[in-house]
Amino acid sequence: MASMASLHLKTTAPQPHSFSNLQKPYSSATLSLPFSRRTAPLTRSTTRISASLIDPDGGKLVELFVGESERESKLKQASELPRITLSKIDLQWVHVLSEGWASPLKGFMRESEFLQTLHFNSLRLENGSLVNMSLPIVLAIDDAQKNRVGSSDSVALVDDRDDVVAVLSSIEIYKHNKEERIARSWGTTAPGLPYVEEAITNAGNWLIGGDLEVLNPVRYNDGLDRFRLSPAQLRDEFERRNADAVFAFQLRNPVHNGHALLMTDTRRRLLEMGYKNPVLLLHPLGGYTKADDVPLSWRMKQHEKVLEDGVLDPETTVVSIFPSPMHYAGPTEVQWHAKARINAGANFYIVGRDPAGMSHPLEKRDLYDADHGKKVLSMAPGLERLNILPFKVAAYDKTQNKMAFFDPSRAQDFLFISGTKMRTLAKNKESPPDGFMCPGGWEVLVEYYDSLALSDNGRVPEPIPA
Amino acid sequence: MASMASLHLKTTAPQPHSFSNLQKPYSSATLSLPFSRRTAPLTRSTTRISASLIDPDGGKLVELFVGESERESKLKQASELPRITLSKIDLQWVHVLSEGWASPLKGFMRESEFLQTLHFNSLRLENGSLVNMSLPIVLAIDDAQKNRVGSSDSVALVDDRDDVVAVLSSIEIYKHNKEERIARSWGTTAPGLPYVEEAITNAGNWLIGGDLEVLNPVRYNDGLDRFRLSPAQLRDEFERRNADAVFAFQLRNPVHNGHALLMTDTRRRLLEMGYKNPVLLLHPLGGYTKADDVPLSWRMKQHEKVLEDGVLDPETTVVSIFPSPMHYAGPTEVQWHAKARINAGANFYIVGRDPAGMSHPLEKRDLYDADHGKKVLSMAPGLERLNILPFKVAAYDKTQNKMAFFDPSRAQDFLFISGTKMRTLAKNKESPPDGFMCPGGWEVLVEYYDSLALSDNGRVPEPIPA
Repeated sequence: MASMASLHLKTTAPQPHSFSNLQKPYSSATLSLPFSRRTAPLTRSTTRISASLIDPDGGKLVELFVGESERESKLKQASELPRITLSKIDLQWVHVLSEGWASPLKGFMRESEFLQTLHFNSLRLENGSLVNMSLPIVLAIDDAQKNRVGSSDSVALVDDRDDVVAVLSSIEIYKHNKEERIARSWGTTAPGLPYVEEAITNAGNWLIGGDLEVLNPVRYNDGLDRFRLSPAQLRDEFERRNADAVFAFQLRNPVHNGHALLMTDTRRRLLEMGYKNPVLLLHPLGGYTKADDVPLSWRMKQHEKVLEDGVLDPETTVVSIFPSPMHYAGPTEVQWHAKARINAGANFYIVGRDPAGMSHPLEKRDLYDADHGKKVLSMAPGLERLNILPFKVAAYDKTQNKMAFFDPSRAQDFLFISGTKMRTLAKNKESPPDGFMCPGGWEVLVEYYDSLALSDNGRVPEPIPA
Repeated sequence: MASMASLHLKTTAPQPHSFSNLQKPYSSATLSLPFSRRTAPLTRSTTRISASLIDPDGGKLVELFVGESERESKLKQASELPRITLSKIDLQWVHVLSEGWASPLKGFMRESEFLQTLHFNSLRLENGSLVNMSLPIVLAIDDAQKNRVGSSDSVALVDDRDDVVAVLSSIEIYKHNKEERIARSWGTTAPGLPYVEEAITNAGNWLIGGDLEVLNPVRYNDGLDRFRLSPAQLRDEFERRNADAVFAFQLRNPVHNGHALLMTDTRRRLLEMGYKNPVLLLHPLGGYTKADDVPLSWRMKQHEKVLEDGVLDPETTVVSIFPSPMHYAGPTEVQWHAKARINAGANFYIVGRDPAGMSHPLEKRDLYDADHGKKVLSMAPGLERLNILPFKVAAYDKTQNKMAFFDPSRAQDFLFISGTKMRTLAKNKESPPDGFMCPGGWEVLVEYYDSLALSDNGRVPEPIPA
């Protein structure tokens, strides 16, 4: 669906001498295979700075795991604290925070961070510099929970089986003005915003911020945990592959050959610019998505087929799951998507038309101007170090029977296959034009819509946080 | 109504040697008297940098007046351009822009400035630095006007008598997404926001940005133009007075003795810090205000009485009118109020509880948390150079029969006189407690509410942009 219009580079291409560190074989790989996930306990607040990869926001990657030696005493301490039960989406944010996707954030936001996020989409660090932070990462509690917390300085965060996940300490409780949060994050308060209905409308009227220490790393046991590489693990993987450029592609849809064309072409352009080994981070979002998006498990099956079919080169592609929930907050959210990938080592970010956009819940129009995401991203405070790679709509070229960069001088040769059209075809078990998507990938989609028809009369299921 | 809690200083007190420039008598005063307004044509894009006062945003004050020598040819050029008729509020914004209150903005915002304002409350300059800009300063046009503009690169801006006020050139027309603008600026889209109803709801669906050149400076001919000092004129006045600190007090209400106490006490504290001659900029807002605010002309009468009665020292006080319209956008707007005063030479800004706040239009609560304005202001990008002076609520001390800093240890001694109570007293021609407001100032208020009762059965008038 996309071709890259141009490369807007904020850095010049590297000179050969800057590669010297990368020529050494990577010797301390804790991750021996791509797609495997380290299960050994992580140390808390680990500092990792790669000599070659882009620095994490704030200079160091913030990991919030309690070390093995402290774990017993922390668990004991936690057992005596007031308990807050986390929703599935809350758990996804614990996951996000714990691995440092939101570095330098050290836990759920306190009020000063919340206000800076809402008003400035950035946080000021102690040294005066700004890091990007466009979406509130907050934990809501209700009056009863607030009363239970009382004057305690810390709380235990527990899952739905009452097992302790983490401790939140030096807490601050402040008002959750939902209307203001929604208006400033989405630019609308219209009813029908998926994340709002799922996670805000019925949430408590208070927010609780503090320092997070995770005792039990979040696992989903859905067969996909091996794909959930942390920023530190991704950085290790990129170094192991001697990547001198990492370009991230955020997605929450099946990959078709237009995407593949774009990604392949991006690598070609980066090579032309002088990079020796640009690596693609194909990074499907794994947290909460709305009901009519294709669920993560099916998307991952589809992505695997695309790699198997050789549409993308496995040698220069890392497929991993980005654990964040989806807000569908357009220009505000795309900053979060980009910022989190800096923390994972990406210095190039591919942005499409209307990123993180959706239809207006009430009006017959897109909620956001299709160009605003790209524009806002390119001007966002704290993202100056990231190279933004915008791309235009691509389409199916009927003269070549394949996806190609759209050429407006022969518009009649191109066929636009929208997401809706793609879904309709798959639901009806019809085939898209040859060359739109690799056959193995298409079969997965047909199978998914088949499963819906069998299970639920074709209705899309309720949203299930992955 | 207010006492100052503490001084949060971002700069240290000046050392004696830094005063040397100020000891010289000011020799080139174009403004010989306070409160007189220079009427000679201003030169375009004048650069003024005071050696002692805080630098304007972007380093130089941007004035957008066409010089006398170019005026005839510009008028001729304007006569051939498509014409856009300005509303009264549009004219107020032309006034604001033309004098450099919004420096370094050079005209109504183009889309990149609009987006940065909505998302980041700041604008990035070419050198990479940020200046604060929290409210969109935009000009809306409708479909018919857009069609009339056609492919013209410039338009003439005219007043309601069709007289040319200004030329807008290198124009850019882009979509006016009102819902998104309102949501991101106010943090709500509830119907009943005064500025929204006055200036946005019925405005056109397009915004037109460009470079502004003002041919006829905006005048109101209401007897108050002499109080409308531009930032350049204020800077001249502060230099003439050898001010080594300027503290600004934004207001849109009558001044009572609580305000006076605060301002006097601020000067005392600044003197204690080592400043030799702190000057107060008492700066009532003169643009659009909502219907139940006391109109500018009555407020100015009241402020004059306060100065006459000696409640404030005329030697160290400059009273001038800030020409901006009022948004009632709380934490978002207070940044604009502060930023504009930097451009006028103020390096200290007094911020009260719930600045620029109002009641929620639908719900029984204040629209904004009373502390958010102060907090947001203290963290806002681009305002790092400004010293924020927060103050707490003050009250009438019954034991002393005067306004005093509220002392919670003897709360029973204090009487809180709200704006509503003050209005009710004045409407009923009752007197407030002795020492609440100087008698001359109180008489003005009684006279105002009297005039309402006579003219319109006591109903507050429709809002009239001053």
